[in-house]
Amino acid sequence: MTDLPATNLVMLTLVKPEGELEVFFERRPMPEPKAHEVLVKVLATPINPSDLGLLFGGADMTTARAATRDGLPVVTADIPPQGMRAMASRVGDALPIGNEGCGLVVKAGDSPEAQALLGRTVALLGGEMYAEYRCLPVQMCMPLPDGTDPKDGASCFVNPLTSLAFTETMRMEGHSAIVHTAAASNLGQMLVKICAKDGIPLVNIVRSAAQVEILKGLGAKHIVNSSDDDFMDRLIAAITETGATLGFDAIGGGKLAGQILSAMEAAAVKRMTNYSRYGSDSFKQVYIYGGLDMGPTVLNRSFGFAWSLSGFLLTPFMQKAGAEVVGRMRQRVADELTTTFKSHYSHDISLVDTLSLDAVAAYNAKRTGEKYLIRPHG
Amino acid sequence: MTDLPATNLVMLTLVKPEGELEVFFERRPMPEPKAHEVLVKVLATPINPSDLGLLFGGADMTTARAATRDGLPVVTADIPPQGMRAMASRVGDALPIGNEGCGLVVKAGDSPEAQALLGRTVALLGGEMYAEYRCLPVQMCMPLPDGTDPKDGASCFVNPLTSLAFTETMRMEGHSAIVHTAAASNLGQMLVKICAKDGIPLVNIVRSAAQVEILKGLGAKHIVNSSDDDFMDRLIAAITETGATLGFDAIGGGKLAGQILSAMEAAAVKRMTNYSRYGSDSFKQVYIYGGLDMGPTVLNRSFGFAWSLSGFLLTPFMQKAGAEVVGRMRQRVADELTTTFKSHYSHDISLVDTLSLDAVAAYNAKRTGEKYLIRPHG
Repeated sequence: MTDLPATNLVMLTLVKPEGELEVFFERRPMPEPKAHEVLVKVLATPINPSDLGLLFGGADMTTARAATRDGLPVVTADIPPQGMRAMASRVGDALPIGNEGCGLVVKAGDSPEAQALLGRTVALLGGEMYAEYRCLPVQMCMPLPDGTDPKDGASCFVNPLTSLAFTETMRMEGHSAIVHTAAASNLGQMLVKICAKDGIPLVNIVRSAAQVEILKGLGAKHIVNSSDDDFMDRLIAAITETGATLGFDAIGGGKLAGQILSAMEAAAVKRMTNYSRYGSDSFKQVYIYGGLDMGPTVLNRSFGFAWSLSGFLLTPFMQKAGAEVVGRMRQRVADELTTTFKSHYSHDISLVDTLSLDAVAAYNAKRTGEKYLIRPHG
Repeated sequence: MTDLPATNLVMLTLVKPEGELEVFFERRPMPEPKAHEVLVKVLATPINPSDLGLLFGGADMTTARAATRDGLPVVTADIPPQGMRAMASRVGDALPIGNEGCGLVVKAGDSPEAQALLGRTVALLGGEMYAEYRCLPVQMCMPLPDGTDPKDGASCFVNPLTSLAFTETMRMEGHSAIVHTAAASNLGQMLVKICAKDGIPLVNIVRSAAQVEILKGLGAKHIVNSSDDDFMDRLIAAITETGATLGFDAIGGGKLAGQILSAMEAAAVKRMTNYSRYGSDSFKQVYIYGGLDMGPTVLNRSFGFAWSLSGFLLTPFMQKAGAEVVGRMRQRVADELTTTFKSHYSHDISLVDTLSLDAVAAYNAKRTGEKYLIRPHG
């Protein structure tokens, strides 16, 4: 534990007042853990869509260009006016990136809690993971069993807790089945496994035959392909069979969220005995929790008036759900880390290569089945 | 009270299985009130946007054509497939129309409550008002002061209770100011008066200079014209000043609902001290309560994740709010019928003329400032 370098390489994202985004590296002094802190050597940290929101924000990445500073890559891109409006409060602040990760505790503060983690492999939540080292409080670490592959510990929080939050939301809001989009994603695969275990009917919407096969391989029962000509008929049939009145949409843009509401309404209307000009009184809720398509959401409102389309974020959900629910969710993630909550990565990449233009274009496309894992120490 | 005709002329709307809408009249036997019922001679009944939803539903009214049957007009129009889907449960049922109205009690059942209403002018809620006479239970009548002009009693329920429901919703859901669209409508004018009396900051969105003048004449403080080039800037300024995080949108289609959410977010971001990639944590709610524009709702989601867009209907609101709140709302309508809740009509029309093609085209355009009052007895 004595061979620590003097500096720590950290990735930063900066919005400049003149309407330019700059993502770059900085060598900072190696942090020294305080009593209740540990210093973690970051071994694996995933690129989640939510990280990309901070990394590139409202910049127009078709204008991205590469440069070098102190031998390290710099990516620059233009920010259109609406992007500047949305990012007004971060102008001039170089922000670190990376929601979660996994690493080895290489130095610990004086407290017994910190000392107990020395040498342990831990999962981390708390930002600033796109770095060689991360110093953070003990309570932001979740110790993993000895011998855990850092790859298995890298995504312990965002996807696992979000997918569990969907089923918790279902119960809290009185629904009995779920519709999910981009359902072949890492998160979607976790949700398939959770719902199978818990006996929750789940309608999986994907957009290719290959994705249908992925989910069939997991034993998913209801899979609907939005590229099929009879998509709406199949969606209505699956929703009729499951009784789903709750949806979670990772895509955001386009017509899909509205199509889900329309299909829920069509299923509800079938159950009605009397016509109402206002549509069914079956309450339909769709949450948008991602922005795989940043284009406009288009709602063809053929679903009456008993509906709601809302944003969904994990952190406010956990605040609302309370400590007991969150504790239960975390315990389940730890218990089922290499089964239900196993993540799959298509690419390993070094920290520095993360800012090559080719890599940026590839992971920023957010293709289902492609997921990047940063390995700061190879 | 002995000169009642033997039949009662009633307007009906029918969806035929072959995809055709037919609106027509039928002469039905004059109803005989049961013990707790009264027979009311309908003197005035308004055409509300919510009535048009039932009257013409999902039909394509550009295909409307006129005919005559038994000397009375018939309007026919084609229904596109998506309209048939939405109206599946009403196919083959000829439905009466007309949510509310005002009339004279000309015959009463044997119960004392019914007898007490004989000869009284009453406001009516309960459908089937587009008729010469309406027989209905006593509790669906609200007796009006002697000498009330039927015009003043025709719209006692839908607009007054809906506008009051907006302010009740504001309090129930913890907001402190309201944004309203199509704000120069009859309902909008009521809302301006309610908010002025109750000290509720109200941002009025209209789309013409003439409408700005109407609301100025009522003393409205915040009026924003969506036709102005600097609409978004003015909307953000008004929302910043009022702190509105709740909106009610009568239009539904187009970008406006999303623009309101964006403006609320811009106002919230100004109050933030730290940047968040997920936007502000200020919860923003817009309710769509009408469909003046039946086109798609287009959301440019530049408003983070703390938002909800929902349908709003009066009846479920009243069920949720409970008897005490509804009783208070009704009492206020009765107390302020000729002041706060006075409606304005641009056109009086006979029952039979309501189905002339010219009239259909005119009132179905739902132009602000134009409101039709049906006078079944001239």
